[in-house]
Amino acid sequence: MKTVDLRSDTVTKPTMEMREAMAHAEVGDDVLGEDPTVKRLEATAAAMIGKEAALFVASGTMGNQVAVLSHTARGNEVIVDDQAHIFYYEVGAPAILSAVQLRPVTGLHGPDAPKLIKAAVRDRDNIHYPETSLICLENTHNRGSGTIMAPEQMQEIYELAKQYRLSVHVDGARIFNAAVALGRQPGEFSRWCDSIMFCLSKGLGAPVGSMLAGSRDFIDRARKYRKALGGGMRQAGILAAAGLVALGSVNRLAEDHVHAKMLAQSLAGIPGVQVDLNKVQTNIIVADVSGTGMTSEEFVSVLEQRGVLAITFGPTLIRLVTHRDVSREDVEYAIDVINNIN
Amino acid sequence: MKTVDLRSDTVTKPTMEMREAMAHAEVGDDVLGEDPTVKRLEATAAAMIGKEAALFVASGTMGNQVAVLSHTARGNEVIVDDQAHIFYYEVGAPAILSAVQLRPVTGLHGPDAPKLIKAAVRDRDNIHYPETSLICLENTHNRGSGTIMAPEQMQEIYELAKQYRLSVHVDGARIFNAAVALGRQPGEFSRWCDSIMFCLSKGLGAPVGSMLAGSRDFIDRARKYRKALGGGMRQAGILAAAGLVALGSVNRLAEDHVHAKMLAQSLAGIPGVQVDLNKVQTNIIVADVSGTGMTSEEFVSVLEQRGVLAITFGPTLIRLVTHRDVSREDVEYAIDVINNIN
Amino acid sequence: MKTVDLRSDTVTKPTMEMREAMAHAEVGDDVLGEDPTVKRLEATAAAMIGKEAALFVASGTMGNQVAVLSHTARGNEVIVDDQAHIFYYEVGAPAILSAVQLRPVTGLHGPDAPKLIKAAVRDRDNIHYPETSLICLENTHNRGSGTIMAPEQMQEIYELAKQYRLSVHVDGARIFNAAVALGRQPGEFSRWCDSIMFCLSKGLGAPVGSMLAGSRDFIDRARKYRKALGGGMRQAGILAAAGLVALGSVNRLAEDHVHAKMLAQSLAGIPGVQVDLNKVQTNIIVADVSGTGMTSEEFVSVLEQRGVLAITFGPTLIRLVTHRDVSREDVEYAIDVINNIN
Amino acid sequence: MKTVDLRSDTVTKPTMEMREAMAHAEVGDDVLGEDPTVKRLEATAAAMIGKEAALFVASGTMGNQVAVLSHTARGNEVIVDDQAHIFYYEVGAPAILSAVQLRPVTGLHGPDAPKLIKAAVRDRDNIHYPETSLICLENTHNRGSGTIMAPEQMQEIYELAKQYRLSVHVDGARIFNAAVALGRQPGEFSRWCDSIMFCLSKGLGAPVGSMLAGSRDFIDRARKYRKALGGGMRQAGILAAAGLVALGSVNRLAEDHVHAKMLAQSLAGIPGVQVDLNKVQTNIIVADVSGTGMTSEEFVSVLEQRGVLAITFGPTLIRLVTHRDVSREDVEYAIDVINNIN
Repeated sequence: MKTVDLRSDTVTKPTMEMREAMAHAEVGDDVLGEDPTVKRLEATAAAMIGKEAALFVASGTMGNQVAVLSHTARGNEVIVDDQAHIFYYEVGAPAILSAVQLRPVTGLHGPDAPKLIKAAVRDRDNIHYPETSLICLENTHNRGSGTIMAPEQMQEIYELAKQYRLSVHVDGARIFNAAVALGRQPGEFSRWCDSIMFCLSKGLGAPVGSMLAGSRDFIDRARKYRKALGGGMRQAGILAAAGLVALGSVNRLAEDHVHAKMLAQSLAGIPGVQVDLNKVQTNIIVADVSGTGMTSEEFVSVLEQRGVLAITFGPTLIRLVTHRDVSREDVEYAIDVINNIN
Repeated sequence: MKTVDLRSDTVTKPTMEMREAMAHAEVGDDVLGEDPTVKRLEATAAAMIGKEAALFVASGTMGNQVAVLSHTARGNEVIVDDQAHIFYYEVGAPAILSAVQLRPVTGLHGPDAPKLIKAAVRDRDNIHYPETSLICLENTHNRGSGTIMAPEQMQEIYELAKQYRLSVHVDGARIFNAAVALGRQPGEFSRWCDSIMFCLSKGLGAPVGSMLAGSRDFIDRARKYRKALGGGMRQAGILAAAGLVALGSVNRLAEDHVHAKMLAQSLAGIPGVQVDLNKVQTNIIVADVSGTGMTSEEFVSVLEQRGVLAITFGPTLIRLVTHRDVSREDVEYAIDVINNIN
Repeated sequence: MKTVDLRSDTVTKPTMEMREAMAHAEVGDDVLGEDPTVKRLEATAAAMIGKEAALFVASGTMGNQVAVLSHTARGNEVIVDDQAHIFYYEVGAPAILSAVQLRPVTGLHGPDAPKLIKAAVRDRDNIHYPETSLICLENTHNRGSGTIMAPEQMQEIYELAKQYRLSVHVDGARIFNAAVALGRQPGEFSRWCDSIMFCLSKGLGAPVGSMLAGSRDFIDRARKYRKALGGGMRQAGILAAAGLVALGSVNRLAEDHVHAKMLAQSLAGIPGVQVDLNKVQTNIIVADVSGTGMTSEEFVSVLEQRGVLAITFGPTLIRLVTHRDVSREDVEYAIDVINNIN
Repeated sequence: MKTVDLRSDTVTKPTMEMREAMAHAEVGDDVLGEDPTVKRLEATAAAMIGKEAALFVASGTMGNQVAVLSHTARGNEVIVDDQAHIFYYEVGAPAILSAVQLRPVTGLHGPDAPKLIKAAVRDRDNIHYPETSLICLENTHNRGSGTIMAPEQMQEIYELAKQYRLSVHVDGARIFNAAVALGRQPGEFSRWCDSIMFCLSKGLGAPVGSMLAGSRDFIDRARKYRKALGGGMRQAGILAAAGLVALGSVNRLAEDHVHAKMLAQSLAGIPGVQVDLNKVQTNIIVADVSGTGMTSEEFVSVLEQRGVLAITFGPTLIRLVTHRDVSREDVEYAIDVINNIN
């Protein structure tokens, strides 16, 4: 039986071109600052995203956590969406590593963001309050169904943040999906933040790694915190070589977006399944299966029996993600399975 | 001009009886476990609240934070109401001291608590998730307008918590207000939690101090954490002596509740001021002044000019609190001021 | 049988004058900045010690920990003596609260301090190293037998610290013992540090509390950290009143020093007991009893059977401390017990 | 001019065999537990070292820090050598990540270890003390000149640790150097500890990565902490493939040891250079150049001008490390440079 793996875009395997690049990568000891391929990747990534400097990190979580460490002081409060990856899926790391308190806000990625931020920022003079120092955005927003925050929305938040002397970090694990979907340049997004993390794995298909970008001073701090987390790697040029290939494949994300819309429409046609098609803006589909009488676990299990892999996203929610290793043919197969689900 | 201080029940000054007790207290070095008055206070408090053991702490915040330290491991997640004192007013201490992540839940003190808790508890097997280990309740609930959580509600949450192997801590800074208002015994509340903190200051009027109560093992752990916070005090029997007097004055809280209702009704009569009288269950009144065209700061300022002190509780919310140092005459004066506010 | 308690100067009980002062203290809510007696104590203490501002804290440990929090950033390294109270007796608090690494140095209070500090300060440019940001001194030095660091020694360290852009905090729990013993002003010591903590309890005899002094900015930061530790107390003027009395009794420490020398000579006369009389500079005596064939626990037990209380300070070390509640007669009794120990 | 890089064994570049293995590695998403090559590496490493389970980590620092996180609770004290990598070179991470206090002990790897440990373990009943929970050893000992701790020494410490209910972790970054040098099996070392970290990079030559090994329960905890540090990598099988090749090359370390002895003897012949040849037991040479009238920086600079790279290890100490990318011919060249240094 055919298997179509829609669990996550993290499952993509390196291409032959990446394997070639890794096999022939020129390397050195990156802890000593001597790996030419890592340096090339960091310079390329910084240029592409439009920031002064960039740092190669082992994962998106490491990139986000190093950013939080580098932007905050012990005991600060950090404003995040209540569905943000940093709050939801990073093992409580902000408290363990940075000793900061998260302030989850419902709707931070929506139109009310400025009002919500104003209400959430703490008065520095009140002795009962932690000091707010950072806002973290997520673009695209994973638990929001891969929705995009437009540069104009980011700008509004960024300018407000500066009024309050707050930093802004963007968890842009899938920022290129946002850019491609809107037909905008990555720099139009990164302009409205102090730092941004994006993944070389996920849709871009590199086997390992993410980039954290920001000012040179910020990246200097980040590099030391990366070392404290054990993220200083030696001949990391092997991985960086694949990352450089990945950065050349940004445009192919458009295909994943087409596939996601096709799958979403198919799912929306099943009685009892709800999909907000307006939210299927990139490569992620979140569907509510409560009307089918099945739990999300049961629904995922039915799909799995027919070779279509998805994950649960709550008691009645499922998530499907398209990516490079899912072809048009795979999508059509999955649609066929979905259409015959009863 | 007369001044009626309704900013907080923390402003009460020690009575003559307390001053007498402090002046004659028998003391010793409590770090060495040799202060007889502290020991007597700890035994009395434990018995009154119905727990095995109790610990004298310098403040409600210290009691709550020592409880979080003693119930959790580094990196755990703690479920709290999104208006809880622990999240809102304790300077981000859970992250600084305990390295735990708070999971603020809207409506944790309401009827949907069991459903909300079920949705918030993390799956231990998911590698992306922190482990949930503690629920913190607040009774009465300060930002909820001093509302009471009945023992039956607490029981339902406690039994659910035990299914998930979670501990339950109660920030019972004003637990005696709850008990007096419902005509229930303190032990009916503390039965449904693993630990409870309550204040000797606030309504009970002692100058300094709170009690943390729980099992003997828990209090042993808490005592060591109190030392790490610098909360080990030497001849603390001076303060404990006032605390013992305070514990004898629980019943007088009823009077504060009557006063609060009187004030609430007066406030509710002002055009443009909203007070939910159903929520004025103890000694706290929260009023929304947005209909008056004034901000909360302006409204508080108008009251202050006439000698009635209140505090803001948000851009349009004000809070008033009755307590021992506010007499019937004071209340009537304040009502008079309120009634003539325009 | 008579009991002479030489375990610690923390066991002193408040005098009648202190009890009177506490009974009549004018108080207010110090969290709101409204306790006049606390304010008076803070102003008096700052003036006496020669710093811009001072903060009342619940204990010496709280004062030290708040200082470490206020001087450092997460992940810094702090140079301390390897016998320092901060390293030895504060429950690992620097790691729990401040997330700093201690760098214990042998002999930091001795003549080689400058050389040792130069060797211990970390190179900021090395990515493997934490950043050194603070030196903590202890004067008098408890585990060093109450030895004094002269102002000139402190000056040398302070000037070196400034070359390296390090802060200097002094755990001056017994700084007045140092000042009285050398006949120097307290300000001659505090001039050579950025912050200093000293105790109102211990030799000065207040029941509870210590002072942390430094610049106004520093004390502002410290006040917020004190709140995070739960050290914000309400009508703390009760305790501050005793503290003010305590500050008036500095000169009587000279008597404790005489008593300590008498006891030390007596101990030194016992075969098998070693006391370095040069180190008995204030009110602390550390003696090595290994030559008696007894462990320190056995030796302490023998003394206790005859009513003289001391503590162990290691497998073969014992410590005796003189204080206000030990009279000349008590000292003579203790000497008699010591002389007849076999 | 020829360059012989003796700065560290971390500079080795992957062999053709490793590059081949990486290019053809079978991979999957290791965060989902689906990378077959990572699984094979973890099983192979666990078997070789003689532990139930093993975990692939991005660096030796990550392995050590994850071990400390997994063995300790917040606020514990950890006994380490005062020259240990964990204390010296890991950016203060034990305080940032684990909130533990290090207790550096001089001579922990020497014959007095049992006595020193007994003196350092804290009494659990003393409220002033953190709880000791872990001893960290380092074998071979980098700052000790690559010296070996024999299995019998480890056994003595391990058995003592168990009496005190302490865990033992070994920073075995170069444990295979120890095993090869003594002609012992790796399992003879790992038998006397609860966990051990060893590097695939360094002498074994893999580009990136280390292994942490221990019981299955321990590794389960460690895996979650690795995720919190951002060390969960996706298609990490690429790196694991090189790691598997590296594990096959253990025996070649013997050659590095021969080279180190040759270099050490040459250095020892220079007037003014001190090398303790008894300590040159593996692939590390530490030499004191103070007798030459040069600082270590000057001495390193002289060598560098002639193409021999070493690092400073203190104001008068230099370190040289042999490794796979240093051939016999390179060693002879370096000796020639050294012999003609004046």
